[in-house]
Amino acid sequence: MTQQKTTTRKSSASRPATFSKQTLRVIPVGGLEEIGRNMTIFEHGNDIVVVDLGLMFPEEEMMGIDYIIPNMEYLEKNKKRIRGVIITHGHFDHIGAIPHVIHRIGNPPIYATELTKAMILKRQEDFKGQGSLNVRTIRKIDRIVLGSFKVEFFHVNHTIPDSIGVVLRTSIGTIVHTGDFKFDHSPVGDAPADISKIARLGSEDILALLSDSTNAQEEGYSISESVIRDNLDQIFLNTRKRLVVATFSSLISRIQQIAELAEKHGRKLAIDGYSMKSNVEIARELGYINARRSTFIDIRQVNDYADSKLVILCPGAQGEGNSTLMKIVNGEHRYTQIHKGDTVIFSSSVIPGNERSVQGLKDTLYMKGAEVIHYKMMGIHASGHGNQEDLKMMINLVRPKYLIPVHGTYYMRKLHGKLGESVGILEKNVFTGVNGQVIEFDYRGNGKLLTEKVPSSYVMVDGLGVGDVGNVVLRDRQMLAKDGMFTIIAIIDRKTKKVVGEPQVTSRGFIYVKENFDLVNAAKKRLKDIVMKSTSKGSNGTEPNWNYIKNSIRDDLGKFLFQKTKRRPIVLPVIIEV
Amino acid sequence: MTQQKTTTRKSSASRPATFSKQTLRVIPVGGLEEIGRNMTIFEHGNDIVVVDLGLMFPEEEMMGIDYIIPNMEYLEKNKKRIRGVIITHGHFDHIGAIPHVIHRIGNPPIYATELTKAMILKRQEDFKGQGSLNVRTIRKIDRIVLGSFKVEFFHVNHTIPDSIGVVLRTSIGTIVHTGDFKFDHSPVGDAPADISKIARLGSEDILALLSDSTNAQEEGYSISESVIRDNLDQIFLNTRKRLVVATFSSLISRIQQIAELAEKHGRKLAIDGYSMKSNVEIARELGYINARRSTFIDIRQVNDYADSKLVILCPGAQGEGNSTLMKIVNGEHRYTQIHKGDTVIFSSSVIPGNERSVQGLKDTLYMKGAEVIHYKMMGIHASGHGNQEDLKMMINLVRPKYLIPVHGTYYMRKLHGKLGESVGILEKNVFTGVNGQVIEFDYRGNGKLLTEKVPSSYVMVDGLGVGDVGNVVLRDRQMLAKDGMFTIIAIIDRKTKKVVGEPQVTSRGFIYVKENFDLVNAAKKRLKDIVMKSTSKGSNGTEPNWNYIKNSIRDDLGKFLFQKTKRRPIVLPVIIEV
Repeated sequence: MTQQKTTTRKSSASRPATFSKQTLRVIPVGGLEEIGRNMTIFEHGNDIVVVDLGLMFPEEEMMGIDYIIPNMEYLEKNKKRIRGVIITHGHFDHIGAIPHVIHRIGNPPIYATELTKAMILKRQEDFKGQGSLNVRTIRKIDRIVLGSFKVEFFHVNHTIPDSIGVVLRTSIGTIVHTGDFKFDHSPVGDAPADISKIARLGSEDILALLSDSTNAQEEGYSISESVIRDNLDQIFLNTRKRLVVATFSSLISRIQQIAELAEKHGRKLAIDGYSMKSNVEIARELGYINARRSTFIDIRQVNDYADSKLVILCPGAQGEGNSTLMKIVNGEHRYTQIHKGDTVIFSSSVIPGNERSVQGLKDTLYMKGAEVIHYKMMGIHASGHGNQEDLKMMINLVRPKYLIPVHGTYYMRKLHGKLGESVGILEKNVFTGVNGQVIEFDYRGNGKLLTEKVPSSYVMVDGLGVGDVGNVVLRDRQMLAKDGMFTIIAIIDRKTKKVVGEPQVTSRGFIYVKENFDLVNAAKKRLKDIVMKSTSKGSNGTEPNWNYIKNSIRDDLGKFLFQKTKRRPIVLPVIIEV
Repeated sequence: MTQQKTTTRKSSASRPATFSKQTLRVIPVGGLEEIGRNMTIFEHGNDIVVVDLGLMFPEEEMMGIDYIIPNMEYLEKNKKRIRGVIITHGHFDHIGAIPHVIHRIGNPPIYATELTKAMILKRQEDFKGQGSLNVRTIRKIDRIVLGSFKVEFFHVNHTIPDSIGVVLRTSIGTIVHTGDFKFDHSPVGDAPADISKIARLGSEDILALLSDSTNAQEEGYSISESVIRDNLDQIFLNTRKRLVVATFSSLISRIQQIAELAEKHGRKLAIDGYSMKSNVEIARELGYINARRSTFIDIRQVNDYADSKLVILCPGAQGEGNSTLMKIVNGEHRYTQIHKGDTVIFSSSVIPGNERSVQGLKDTLYMKGAEVIHYKMMGIHASGHGNQEDLKMMINLVRPKYLIPVHGTYYMRKLHGKLGESVGILEKNVFTGVNGQVIEFDYRGNGKLLTEKVPSSYVMVDGLGVGDVGNVVLRDRQMLAKDGMFTIIAIIDRKTKKVVGEPQVTSRGFIYVKENFDLVNAAKKRLKDIVMKSTSKGSNGTEPNWNYIKNSIRDDLGKFLFQKTKRRPIVLPVIIEV
């Protein structure tokens, strides 16, 4: 390594209005401390290119939150400089933030391959009021110019076709971003990853590689989709009765396989579930699913065919309460239910946190006389992310000076970094910073992980609100969830300062008020006592301090109710003077 | 098989007051559709013997619930007939319901081995007001008579010493209940399971075997604790800095190993966490932990020793928010925090549902410069339950006519049943019923799974309340958790029926009222409009129907708030006439 003297640029939050072409900055705003909400900013001179705008599904304690998106503060401030947004593939963790943020950053052009574009536009339909998008189709052989960036693409394998990696060339150096990827030498309904093109990059002195860390903990190579297809083929071959296949609606590659196998084995395919159906529609329209029209039947026709001639494909392999599979299992589906002898295939992994509901679903299926085939029993699911050997192969092909593990938690990225070191990347050239932390390359191509951070905190989407649910609302929801609430309302006579009539109690999620008269009456009495004491004490003509009195009531009743029930509802005293 | 004509007894909910000795009934009330809340009733003639009184931890959607216990209705109704409760070992899923229910079933004598007894009495200290227990110590060689049951015990291995299986002899036949078990030929600080005694049972024509199904999905044999000890020994040998070991406080066998290894490697052991400390105290007092007094130091002395001379042992390997480990990691512990170079050992499996928090904890530890050793990386945890080969071995040793898989979900027990069939149990002699379903043996020893069921629904414990939280309160908590609540209060003039002043709004977990004046004002206006319309319409002298008006307000505001926010808070209109 010929490491030269590094000229450090002073980076501060208030950057000057003109930007030096002498630095290239890489800022992963999301996806470094989580799986999801992927977004990386590339800055060269006055130009910004963004790769991916994804969302992440909330953790358990983020109650009522729909999803979490990357923080847009930095891009909003610099929106005039954005030359384009490149989307690597059509999954929600890469496209999901678009409808919520694209207009706040000036609606820049979005570059995406054909299928990815269709997925983006499909999702936008759910956000009609948000204005239209400016999506431009790219082919994998295209070269586009975005300001001072020259951009190329290369084909990679994933669980959805038309996935790409991105090459960003600047005067300072070339950066490669893999997107989500695995190497599959025999994919189903897709070409193998373009290893030749990636290998050619390796002869070019690539400055840095941003690479997918999702499976950095998994040993060996990823499994080929054709292995999965062969295993599914065996199941089709050996099953005499009905087949019900549950998977993610985003696993287009798996859906392809099911359609083709249904056709091969002379079964009709009924698809249900809103997003599953619309994804299949898109994929069929664009030619990514190559089964005859006559193979597909409407879910309403499901009873017109013998069990031995049917496959039902639907979402719900995570045991989600509202999914199509759950409705079928619980007898709440409009057209069908589980038949004795059905074979139910769970063709997806279990997302951490869902194990218990999946177990419950399997139990119910067994009780109803169905057979369950699960990915732990045989190879009927492959991840879309490269395992350790895939990751090493990518590094060896690209031969970058710097490795920047992305898409993963800190631990996964740290492991990915160690893999990089094991194939020759210098330890000091592996950057495993945190979300928002700036990586800067100087004109000599010397990289540095700065202490500078752009805003990268969670932005929560809840209904129509983006970022309006903060920690206070979340904490309230957590408390409400645990022990409910107890509202007590007292009317006070403006003149006498006495409680008029009986205080009213409204409670939810705490106890049955109707079965706990004694407790409720005792609470009312305590309120009256506190009001009486507080108002008679200070009855020197001054107005009572109602805020102080309300706090006393809240404290007193909180303690009283805890002592009587060992529960801590949110106590809300309301005082109204009339 | 010499199957004879079966004389079926008519079983109804209203059983006669005298009971025939001609039948032996086995009723697993809990533990058949879940992991936890284990309890089985054995009935012969007028006598009832209960094995285990356990609890189960709630599922995610059971918000605010502390735990779930078995339904006691049947035992309460028949409490005069209970001759004794036998507890197989000291874990909460076998002893946890005792303080909540024992006095409701007439405080019958509890039979338990020494350590189990100590754990039961320790837990009872947390329920001081509930009266004292009548716990009798049994040794594994004892034979006791409980009514018409003659009862013996045999030693099994588990993750806590002093675990037993139970043999219940009656005039109809002998039933064996394994409790939680595995076979460990080289346990640590414990004797191997008493295979000889179990084998002798096999020569006796055992009627039925109730056996632990928890690990029926796991292939091969369970791992011996001495393998774990050797692996931990290696880690101790290779670690120069501080060791932090996190495990369950109930894994007494693991705690033993840590104490002995600390002593062997010349390290002091600091233990923290309430239940961890009290369990260690009990185990040391009874001689189950054989380390010198000088090995143990108080957590407050933790800074008096060099990092290389220290082990900290605490709970928190599940990433629980309030655990000691979490406090240490987040810098909230009073005496210590994570040091760069610490090795943190997670010596327990991850309970389904906790994967995400454990991942987060590992990330934080790596960011703070600690090394993490996890049970998936090397054998530092063994389950306390027998794998498939252990289960087959148990069946082959006991050679029962009937197999009743217990302790597991339906799916696990079904698999267990298939294992039984693979070693010679007839398919029709495997009973995999559901919770509460009665198994009856007639005087010829012919068993039958009846359709009769005793009450077995979930009983939820929340604070001091047992069974008082029902589905309504739970549903309210789920709604409150998702979108919070919105209380709107209107004072009505009793004479004019007009709203006095402005309605008041109190909201939690929905939006910041202070930042949403427009929405709140619009809601108030809608309320006033509704009241005005409703009261002027019916102003023919009759009293307005306030309940009807409140429902209108609830519906109208619910729709209005959803339209504006796409959130559905619980809307609580309160109308007060003055």
